[in-house]
Order: sequence, then C-alpha cells, then structure tokens
Amino acid sequence: MIITLTTDFGLYDHFVGVMKGVMLSIAPSARLIDITHDITPYNVRMASFVLNSSYNYFPEKSVHLCVVDPGVGSERRALAGSAGGRFFVGPDNGLFTSIIDNYGPAKIHEITDSKMKLARVSGTFHGRDIFAPVAAHLASGTPLESVGPVVNDPVRLEMAGARRLDNGSVAGEIVYMDRFGNAVTNIGVHMIKDSGVSIRVAGETVKGIVPSYFAGVDSKLNATFGSDDTLELFVRNGDAARKYGLIAGDKVFCESGVCRT
Amino acid sequence: MIITLTTDFGLYDHFVGVMKGVMLSIAPSARLIDITHDITPYNVRMASFVLNSSYNYFPEKSVHLCVVDPGVGSERRALAGSAGGRFFVGPDNGLFTSIIDNYGPAKIHEITDSKMKLARVSGTFHGRDIFAPVAAHLASGTPLESVGPVVNDPVRLEMAGARRLDNGSVAGEIVYMDRFGNAVTNIGVHMIKDSGVSIRVAGETVKGIVPSYFAGVDSKLNATFGSDDTLELFVRNGDAARKYGLIAGDKVFCESGVCRT
Amino acid sequence: MIITLTTDFGLYDHFVGVMKGVMLSIAPSARLIDITHDITPYNVRMASFVLNSSYNYFPEKSVHLCVVDPGVGSERRALAGSAGGRFFVGPDNGLFTSIIDNYGPAKIHEITDSKMKLARVSGTFHGRDIFAPVAAHLASGTPLESVGPVVNDPVRLEMAGARRLDNGSVAGEIVYMDRFGNAVTNIGVHMIKDSGVSIRVAGETVKGIVPSYFAGVDSKLNATFGSDDTLELFVRNGDAARKYGLIAGDKVFCESGVCRT
Repeated sequence: MIITLTTDFGLYDHFVGVMKGVMLSIAPSARLIDITHDITPYNVRMASFVLNSSYNYFPEKSVHLCVVDPGVGSERRALAGSAGGRFFVGPDNGLFTSIIDNYGPAKIHEITDSKMKLARVSGTFHGRDIFAPVAAHLASGTPLESVGPVVNDPVRLEMAGARRLDNGSVAGEIVYMDRFGNAVTNIGVHMIKDSGVSIRVAGETVKGIVPSYFAGVDSKLNATFGSDDTLELFVRNGDAARKYGLIAGDKVFCESGVCRT
Repeated sequence: MIITLTTDFGLYDHFVGVMKGVMLSIAPSARLIDITHDITPYNVRMASFVLNSSYNYFPEKSVHLCVVDPGVGSERRALAGSAGGRFFVGPDNGLFTSIIDNYGPAKIHEITDSKMKLARVSGTFHGRDIFAPVAAHLASGTPLESVGPVVNDPVRLEMAGARRLDNGSVAGEIVYMDRFGNAVTNIGVHMIKDSGVSIRVAGETVKGIVPSYFAGVDSKLNATFGSDDTLELFVRNGDAARKYGLIAGDKVFCESGVCRT
Repeated sequence: MIITLTTDFGLYDHFVGVMKGVMLSIAPSARLIDITHDITPYNVRMASFVLNSSYNYFPEKSVHLCVVDPGVGSERRALAGSAGGRFFVGPDNGLFTSIIDNYGPAKIHEITDSKMKLARVSGTFHGRDIFAPVAAHLASGTPLESVGPVVNDPVRLEMAGARRLDNGSVAGEIVYMDRFGNAVTNIGVHMIKDSGVSIRVAGETVKGIVPSYFAGVDSKLNATFGSDDTLELFVRNGDAARKYGLIAGDKVFCESGVCRT
C-alpha cells in the first residue's frame, strides 16, 4: 500500500517528516512516496495539475495525500475520495478538480469521524492531525465510507480547457511551468493535425512541432508534445520561462494544421 | 523499524544517500524517513528544536539519527541513547538537550565499540562511518549497552525556557522560524489564561489570540497557538519574518491574560 | 532489492515522484533511495563522480538508476549494465565511465526490448518511459541479458586522472565541489607520502595536511583527506569555493612529500 504526498510545505521544516511519522504509527507498512513539496504556497491550481499528471502512474489502491490548504482552520471541509481505482485525501478547495474530471466518476466523503483524526486537532496543522491519519487509515483498508457522509458538491476550480474557435484555430493556455522553464499547455496531441501548425504565445510565433527537446533549434522557442501528450513550448538547452517571460495562464493559439473535429 | 534522519547536509550532495546505503547494508528492512536535511549548517539549537517537535510522532523503538556536527574530527564524543521509548544517535554537542528534558529519563552511551562503526573511519564524515552504522544496528535490535560505556554528563545547551516575572507577565522567546516566516515561541498554551492577552515582540504589540492562521487579520502580526501547543506569531497569507524582522532568540513578553500559577 | 536515483530533475516538479510510481507498479517491494536530484542540469561529469562515490555503499544487487540525459529524444542509446555486483541503468553518454573504470569489468547491454519499456514512449521523458521500468525489472530479477544486445563501446568521458610529473610532483584536479564549498580532488591518499606536502591551487599554496576539518586553521585554505580518501581543500567553518573561487576542473599540484612510486 502506497501513500503519495503532495504539499506546499517545502523540505526546510520538519512538517513533512512529522506527517510521515503519524502515518507510519497508523500504517506501519505503508510506502511513503513524495511527489513534490514545492507547490507554490497556496497554489491549488498548480497542485491540481501535478496530482492529475501523477495520479495514474501509481498502482491501484494507492492513496494520494495532498495538503495545499490556505483555508486551514476555517470551515472548509476535509475530504477523502476515490476515483479510477485510487484514493485521494485533502481539503475541499478544488485540489481534486482534474482528478474528478479525468479519472471519475468519483466517490467523495467528508471527514467527520473523530476516530479518523489525531486525538487533538490543532488549528494550524491539519496535514498532521487530520489528513495524514485518514490517508494511513485508507491505506490500511478502512472503508472510504467510514470517514463521514457523502459529498456531492466538492469545490471545483474553473478549468478553461482548450477549445476550437469558429475560425478553426485552437485556443488553450499554459497550465504549468516546470523548473527547467518549459511551458506545458492544455492543448492535447489529438487537437493538432500536422507539424505545419503555427503557434502564437506571448507575442512569439512558433512554426511546426519537433519530436523531442533534442530536435529543437537552439536559442529560439520550439514546440513539442510533452510527457503528458500535450503541446509544450521550450528552448533547447535553455529556459523558455526566462527568455520569453512565459507564465502559467498565458494564452496559446494554434492556427492551421489543427484538427477540425 | 524506523530510522529518521535530521542533518545539515542538504540534498545537493550524495551524503544523505550514502548514509542510507550504509544503513540498508546493515539493516536491510529499515524504513528511512527524512525529517529535514536543511538545518542551518552547525545550528545545534535549531536541530534540537526540530528533533523535539518530531520525536514522539514516530512509533516506539524508532531511531532518530541526527548529524549536525561542527566538531567532526575533534575529541567530541559520539552518543547513542534512549528516552521515552525511542532511540537517538549523534554527536555529543547538545543536540539531545530537549529530548532529554522532555522525554527523559534518558540512558546515554558513548559509541566506542569499533564493531559498531565502518571498518575505516574518515576524519570528515562520521555520519557515514559512525552514526549511520550505529543507528542501523540499534534498529536491528543490537542492545544500546553494547555500543560503549554509560555517559552521565552529555553536553547540554542552555535552554532559557519561558518564565513568569514578578509583575505577573510571562517572558519567553522565539525558538524557531519556519519557512513560511511564522515565529514559534517557547510560551506554552498552559501559561496563557485568556484571549485578552497582550503580546510584545520586536517593538510590536499583538492583542489577543486567534484560533488559526485563517482567523488572523491580513497585513498585521497575529498570534495563535501553533501545532506544538505554543504561542506562535504570524502574518495571515504573509511572512512575519520578512515583514517584522523576527528571528530566533527575539524576546517575547505576554501581559495580562496570563496564568498566575 | 534497492533502486537508487540520481538525476538532474530537481524536486520542484513531479518527475521524480512519477518515476517512483512507475517503478513501484512493476516492482512493488523495491526500496527507492534518492542519491541526489540536484546534479547540475546536463552535467554528466558531475553525475559520474557522484555515482562512483555512492556505488559501493549500497548492498550487492542494488540497481543504480541515473538520468542525466541531454540527448533525450536523440539517437543516443539507452543502457543497462552490471559491475562489481551492482546494476546501473541510464543513457549512453559517459555517465558510467567511473563505475566501469573502478568497479569493472562491466557487462553492458543496450535497452531495445520494448517489453522493458512503458507501452508508450514519449520524446521528452525517457526517465519515466524507459529507464525507470528497466531499473524496476532488474530489481525484480529480470536477467540483464534480456534487455537487449551487448554493448562493447559505451560512450566514455575523458578522465584525466592524477599523475606523477617528471620532476616528482603530482598533478591532479578538482573533480567535485560540495555544497559547503569544499573541493574534492582526484589525488588519492596513496600518492602523498607525508604531511610536509606543499599544494598549489588557484594561486594559493597550502602546506601540510590536517586530519579533519576541525583541525584546520580558520580563514585560510587547508587540506585534508576527505571521505573518498582523496585530497580535499577546505576552509574551516567557511566556504572555500566562495573565498578562493575554486571550481571543478581547477588544476592542483603537490610538491615534495609525495610518493615516488
């Protein structure tokens, strides 16, 4: 049984280690795998993307624990759910929007049973006091239903999604900037017809798609299909974020060479 | 059997990985959990705080390995001990002061038996050559006594501790700044009577205590009880360290609303 | 069965986590140990050093997975091999030069069998699609031979090596700068005869060798034998990289007090 961790806690403090201690106290044989702890603080949208891109690479029954929680201590609900054969646990703030959309249908429950939590729940560290224990209980075989009542209206992020415009072009956006400065978009491989496509982003125009970073041209913006099978913009041996100022949310337009259906 | 790791080695080099290889060579089924490797280099006081805050969240018989060791290669002793049902291993420089104070009585031994160490001990990397092997041996069930003779006088850090002043107020200090810029103090929840307390720190005055970060007021200094059940100073959605220049060691005074006994 | 990971991916993104998910899907009981993910991007020479310094501290049959891969998506081969009782997996770009030199003879195979890879191989993330699955298969007992044909001509880095000059002195170089600013050289302990040696590097002259960092003199450059049993230059409680501008590749000369054979 595997529990993955995705947080904005960083690795400077002992917070992640303490959550792991709590989980191993409940589920001594759980495998604890870090996805990342470098989510930009409070960036629920970034965490939603990261979870979605990692979700299915873990075996069935894995538990994905995600704590990016600007509302800790407020009335926001604590959730545990399942979709696509895996579990997820975290605050009800939209973190699981992409998972529900892509791996659903989802069963979602609110965490209310105090037996699922540590004996004392602080006002500042629900990762330790609520979410870690619940993840460990799920990994140990506790039925999802036992955490609390069904939730039918989880908080959702607005997800723009790429779409075809009336003029036949495709409009999408950058959804993630990786640490190398590559720009991952939400435009899927199935929306692009051929390598003659013309891509506009941030005042730049990129012509055509290359099969890998290696096949790009140095010192200019290139496009490829990235590891999520979506359009990705990059500078070969360089940093597209720095060189072109790309950031998540930038609009991306593909003209000609796109699929019409 | 769990071994936790707390060091100032960072994650840039292979030093932490090599210590893990050494431990798995001795104790193949040990679970290795990082608490943090970002202790400020040589900051024994910070490591002592982190260890104390993490110690009891791990199951009984866990071994806490801590290598923050400005004296590596000097005559300082190497220690292994037990307190509160867990073990600890590291250099004799005060690292374990808080553990001994809070989880004791402690049994402490000096590591002298060369069978407990790697065959060759370098002058620069006792984490690999002495402390990791001993942690792995303890995790494997080797009796604590067999590492070497009893130590009755471990090096201690001076720990100020919060205290009641003659005028009835409470004086404490900031003992840890987390990476979000929150200031953890050594003033326990039991020393504060009500939410009408008035707190002075670094020239600022904070009135009252809120139940969570979320309940704080934006753009000013707030106080809550943090996850260690001590007074914590924070800026909601902000960084109190940057905004108010708070650092570990700053004095904190609580007036009115404090407990008199 | 242990799999170690050495990459230049950093920990900001989910890439390392996803590789671990892939490996646990194939080898559910594999132990996954990070050596470092902070190799300077594309720095194959640095990765080769780190692998060599870590290799033998892990138990026999461990699999060392290394992905520093500027040529991803090019025609460079993917390799799996064994030497000294351990396995290694990664791109054919010289990463394994030091291992082959120091732990060989090596058996090396090209990864061609598509059953060893994920069903779909992207052009940008062979760590996930090729190297992680192969590492997991080897950890599960799949014979090395089954990944593909023998390789007799792996790409090699040019390794200078320290050498004795005609005038009796020893010439070597800095091969690694650690995060504390210490400079590790390729001059082995067996090349230095006594502590009266005189060392020249970057315009500085260091006289004699001390037994540990602790024994160094503050605020000046010192020499010791480091944890790899090679000459190391350091500033006690300081940073030799910053203070003296030392970088990997700097030449180092030892005069007098060196071994003549």
